Amino acid sequence: MKVALPELTNSNLRDALFSPRSVAIVGQSDDASKAAGRPLKFLRRIGYAGRVYPINPRRETVLGERAWPALAALPEPPEHAYIVTPTQAAVAAVEECGALGVKVATVLADGFAEAGAEGMARETRLRETCARTGIRIVGPSSLGVVDLRTRVMLTANAAFDEKDFPLGRIFAASHSGSMIGALMSRGKARGTGFAGFVSVGNEVDLSLGEICAATLDDPDIDGYMLFLETMRHADTLRRFALSAAERGKPIIAYKLGRSDAARELAVSHTGALAGEDDVADQFLRSCGIARVDTLEGLIEGPPLLSRVPAAARGGRKRVGVVTTTAGGATMVVDPLASRGVTVEPASTATLARIAAAGIEVKPARLVDLTIAGARYETMKATLDILTAAPEFDLVLAVIGSSARSQPEITVRPIIDSAGAARPLAAFVVPDAPEALAMLSRAGVPNFRTPEACADAIAAALSRQPPRPLPARSAAPVASNGPVLDELAASALLDRLGIARAPSVALEVGIARAPPLPFAYPVAVKVLCAEIAHKTDVGGVALGVVDGEALIAAIQNIAATVAERRPGARVGRVLVQPMVSGLGEVLLGYRVDRDVGALIMVASGGVLTEIARDRSLRLAPIDLATAHEMIAEVRSLMALAGYRGRPAGDFDALARAMVALSQLADDASIAEAEINPLIVRPAGEGVVAVDALVKLAGNA
Amino acid sequence: MKVALPELTNSNLRDALFSPRSVAIVGQSDDASKAAGRPLKFLRRIGYAGRVYPINPRRETVLGERAWPALAALPEPPEHAYIVTPTQAAVAAVEECGALGVKVATVLADGFAEAGAEGMARETRLRETCARTGIRIVGPSSLGVVDLRTRVMLTANAAFDEKDFPLGRIFAASHSGSMIGALMSRGKARGTGFAGFVSVGNEVDLSLGEICAATLDDPDIDGYMLFLETMRHADTLRRFALSAAERGKPIIAYKLGRSDAARELAVSHTGALAGEDDVADQFLRSCGIARVDTLEGLIEGPPLLSRVPAAARGGRKRVGVVTTTAGGATMVVDPLASRGVTVEPASTATLARIAAAGIEVKPARLVDLTIAGARYETMKATLDILTAAPEFDLVLAVIGSSARSQPEITVRPIIDSAGAARPLAAFVVPDAPEALAMLSRAGVPNFRTPEACADAIAAALSRQPPRPLPARSAAPVASNGPVLDELAASALLDRLGIARAPSVALEVGIARAPPLPFAYPVAVKVLCAEIAHKTDVGGVALGVVDGEALIAAIQNIAATVAERRPGARVGRVLVQPMVSGLGEVLLGYRVDRDVGALIMVASGGVLTEIARDRSLRLAPIDLATAHEMIAEVRSLMALAGYRGRPAGDFDALARAMVALSQLADDASIAEAEINPLIVRPAGEGVVAVDALVKLAGNA
Repeated sequence: MKVALPELTNSNLRDALFSPRSVAIVGQSDDASKAAGRPLKFLRRIGYAGRVYPINPRRETVLGERAWPALAALPEPPEHAYIVTPTQAAVAAVEECGALGVKVATVLADGFAEAGAEGMARETRLRETCARTGIRIVGPSSLGVVDLRTRVMLTANAAFDEKDFPLGRIFAASHSGSMIGALMSRGKARGTGFAGFVSVGNEVDLSLGEICAATLDDPDIDGYMLFLETMRHADTLRRFALSAAERGKPIIAYKLGRSDAARELAVSHTGALAGEDDVADQFLRSCGIARVDTLEGLIEGPPLLSRVPAAARGGRKRVGVVTTTAGGATMVVDPLASRGVTVEPASTATLARIAAAGIEVKPARLVDLTIAGARYETMKATLDILTAAPEFDLVLAVIGSSARSQPEITVRPIIDSAGAARPLAAFVVPDAPEALAMLSRAGVPNFRTPEACADAIAAALSRQPPRPLPARSAAPVASNGPVLDELAASALLDRLGIARAPSVALEVGIARAPPLPFAYPVAVKVLCAEIAHKTDVGGVALGVVDGEALIAAIQNIAATVAERRPGARVGRVLVQPMVSGLGEVLLGYRVDRDVGALIMVASGGVLTEIARDRSLRLAPIDLATAHEMIAEVRSLMALAGYRGRPAGDFDALARAMVALSQLADDASIAEAEINPLIVRPAGEGVVAVDALVKLAGNA
Repeated sequence: MKVALPELTNSNLRDALFSPRSVAIVGQSDDASKAAGRPLKFLRRIGYAGRVYPINPRRETVLGERAWPALAALPEPPEHAYIVTPTQAAVAAVEECGALGVKVATVLADGFAEAGAEGMARETRLRETCARTGIRIVGPSSLGVVDLRTRVMLTANAAFDEKDFPLGRIFAASHSGSMIGALMSRGKARGTGFAGFVSVGNEVDLSLGEICAATLDDPDIDGYMLFLETMRHADTLRRFALSAAERGKPIIAYKLGRSDAARELAVSHTGALAGEDDVADQFLRSCGIARVDTLEGLIEGPPLLSRVPAAARGGRKRVGVVTTTAGGATMVVDPLASRGVTVEPASTATLARIAAAGIEVKPARLVDLTIAGARYETMKATLDILTAAPEFDLVLAVIGSSARSQPEITVRPIIDSAGAARPLAAFVVPDAPEALAMLSRAGVPNFRTPEACADAIAAALSRQPPRPLPARSAAPVASNGPVLDELAASALLDRLGIARAPSVALEVGIARAPPLPFAYPVAVKVLCAEIAHKTDVGGVALGVVDGEALIAAIQNIAATVAERRPGARVGRVLVQPMVSGLGEVLLGYRVDRDVGALIMVASGGVLTEIARDRSLRLAPIDLATAHEMIAEVRSLMALAGYRGRPAGDFDALARAMVALSQLADDASIAEAEINPLIVRPAGEGVVAVDALVKLAGNA
């Protein structure tokens, strides 16, 4: 569909987006209180130096300036057009822009993909215009593009109705248009400065990842702040994230949807388990993006991220806390602990150094200066010792009332110690705007609430370097393919090297049981690709003790399934030995539409679905990751040798997980689920008892 | 120990604490930058009108005023003395105060119970002084007492080094002294006003509950804000809370310790399970105290609490959300959902009323005014319809960028609709101090962060009326009593009417198995009060098939236990039939040192301890509460008829829970645990298989 027109290179795209020499505002209103009236007002107030062409066919002037009747009447094609007309006119305007050679059009109107068939048709027209003319589109539903350096302020967001803006080195991108105003204004209030903002809207053409990527070589941008509503265009987001990591530019993200009720997908349990938010979490993590859970953590987090480099897994979450208020500091300890971050007590050696400095501190989880007293010298000497102590990955200073009344005593030393080897952050317990401003001006990460403080620290300490893209092509896999029957699924397990129970297929009609290659008792299961949940239709018999019982079980299964599933073709059953072990798990593999191949391990049995006790990662995984995942499944602790009970073979389990995750290299498989996988005692392996495999369909 | 001196009545105590006609500052320093220098400075700056006696034996003057050499030299005994000397001198000063007839002494020094044997001895001296002289003590480790109306500012907290204070109708009490400064300053910044503050310190005499109770009849106090570090003196806290509820004065509390690792207690599992924070949570709930999880929720929550009356359990958590920014509003939906609060879509009738008002809104979970546009009339009409709609318990308005740029358009209508039947609250998405101040001035609950907003809404909507005190005396039960053997424990179950497996006790030495009153296979368990965890010492045999096997099992148990527990007296075993059912649970009962009798239900088996999947309440409970608890145990969903599986007899389970909780009327029992309690199919009951009972010891 897309023809080979010259695409904008990144730097061309960046210039057209963020430093165009000329802009048009299509549909500019004369009423500055309306959304369509704001862009010209904002551009003039901030002092954009390029050429501005307001277009309004019904007026001679808008906001006191000459209005042009149409794009075609302009003396030149503008580099960037902000189209603020209603929906129908916007589609036509984009086409006109494309024809005139406008490089980028940002579209405010809604009424596209979210508006039914008619909207979808409009969206298709936009895409065709891009393909035909080479124009790039931001939006639709975009509240605009802002660059505070070049003073390009193409936005209809009312929060930009300001005189002063927080200029800085963070670029912010948001799915929500309203949020660019919230990020700007909250950043301004908290000392976080921005280079620019984009509201990406529906991303019919330019995705959030592509727009951010266009700014990667901007030397005045040090990091990125993302407000995400979906995982749309995860591929470009990942490519952007990897390039940002190469350049040492950290990305912090807030994503909506923690609470999304999981949707039961098609045939396999895996779909039901892999709730969207788990997937997003692992995707962002694999991209090296630090995800925060609080809005203030997003706003206040960037200075901390830039001081805490991403690090490989393990043992990197020890925080030392020095405080003038134990109660205030404990407010941070609680949410840190719930996020898996340890507040580490000072070592004996560190305590000895503090004592040698003449400072009285009791051995405890917090280094509490209450007795020593709030003095500059005390705080400074303690901070110098703590930020050099090897037992901490990060030092947090929690300052009480003195932060409000005498910041020079307890806040100044934090600033003076901030150059130390270990990252240093501050939380001030009272309302203390002056202290916060001092810290922000000095570039010291500082937090206004205990929750945001813990959130940002946990996000920074758990950030890992991004994983390189998986080897296989990024082509999405359609999930509408056929399901393999269990014999074929068994063959796949054999190919992957995952041990499974031996099995024999028997015809439903047989009158006598043949000799079996394994001993009774056996399990009998209906063999039919159309039936995903065999138990639900009476398709399983367990503990069948001899040949006679086997024939009876086969007949019973055939009759019951025929009754409960009239249409299903039931010709054969599968017979297996009864397999026992210490416990069972579910292993799942699935190619997610947005983020690609996923591997999951979950507790087995009915609790799988109820308790959602599971761990997932992007596939493929290595052995260390598999063990990390096993440790995350709470109920598997029961098989870890708990209270003298026998330990399960977690090494074999991890190998099976790695093997299943290799399906990421096999584009023919859409989903695979082993349920149950029996876990035997250590050294005795794991055994797959049932497997469900779904092939990829036609995209 | 305590002699019968006239105690201060509540109003006398209130006057001495919060409106004394004369105060002494014992140990007042001449250096106002030191803690001991602050009280006089603060008293003079705020303009306290009573008589002030600074006491400093080493100086003629302090801060330019006459210093008195000793308490004995004063022309009158002051009503309230703030003792800011070091520890040793403080003890002597309290004694002197007592002798002179000072009514209340507030003590700043630390070095008491937390400082070993020497500190404990000092604390005992303080208590003896109270008993002997009738003086009441706040502290030690108290940063003081503040009443903003009477201008009593007896505090050493540096955050009170201010000119203006947020005068209002909330009384704040805190275990942490630093936090009274944080509450005051943060309240000031967020429009929350206070009548007074107390830092209760170690509560050697006056507890937090007693001090708050003394203010209950103050007509200018509308509600309470608590910052709690422990559940010390839970009895007075409960009495205060019940009296506050009678007067319609809501209490909001933040309590540290969500993350406390549970401590394994003595013999029974129950202790290990009932982590302190669960207990605190249920205790506060049973007192009708709204517990929040965020610091900002604590500061911003009171206006909402005063608008949402406490309500009995069930179906009272439906929030309607109207917004000008769907992305911003969803930031509140996520944390609301994780706290069990439902964002309810508007009903068809409500949507019809909105449409009839000429406002375009699509049917969705949020009432999104993006299309309709941000206008006063639109917002006002929508709010009027929503606050009258029966499907909502509370209406939340989430306002985007216009809250910053044009609050008159979208924030003013919230104020104008706030008198409606349904409580109305606001969250503003951008930084919008003017909008927040407008809302606060008008008394409309308003929130600065999505997390605090969700936190306070959930706390307000789940607040229940306090439960009356349990019938039995509040006398604490010592947990050092003896453990009953299983036969005696069985007798207790019989008395409570909880069905149990029949059992026969056999001597270890028997050579032939006697006839049993039930069929084989049977279970055999060592019968010995000294052994709490029978399985751990090889004291259990299951599935014993006949008499011969029974004798072998008895001998094997005797030998194994003798080897693993050399000291234990093992003379008998207990034989029971094998009992099977759909699943098993653990029921626990325990008298907590602080909050009293507790009842717990947990998932059975090894996961009990690992997954901490359980629910607890203060005992006794009723049937409805028992069912509520069952619904809170995640793994019990597997027995709730999930996916066509047979349902367990939850009615019988609930009855057993109610029966066990009746132990709250039996002061002779300290702990009781039924593990496992077998849950059979609906209609077939539950059966206790093992029980552990510990008697109360001597206090």
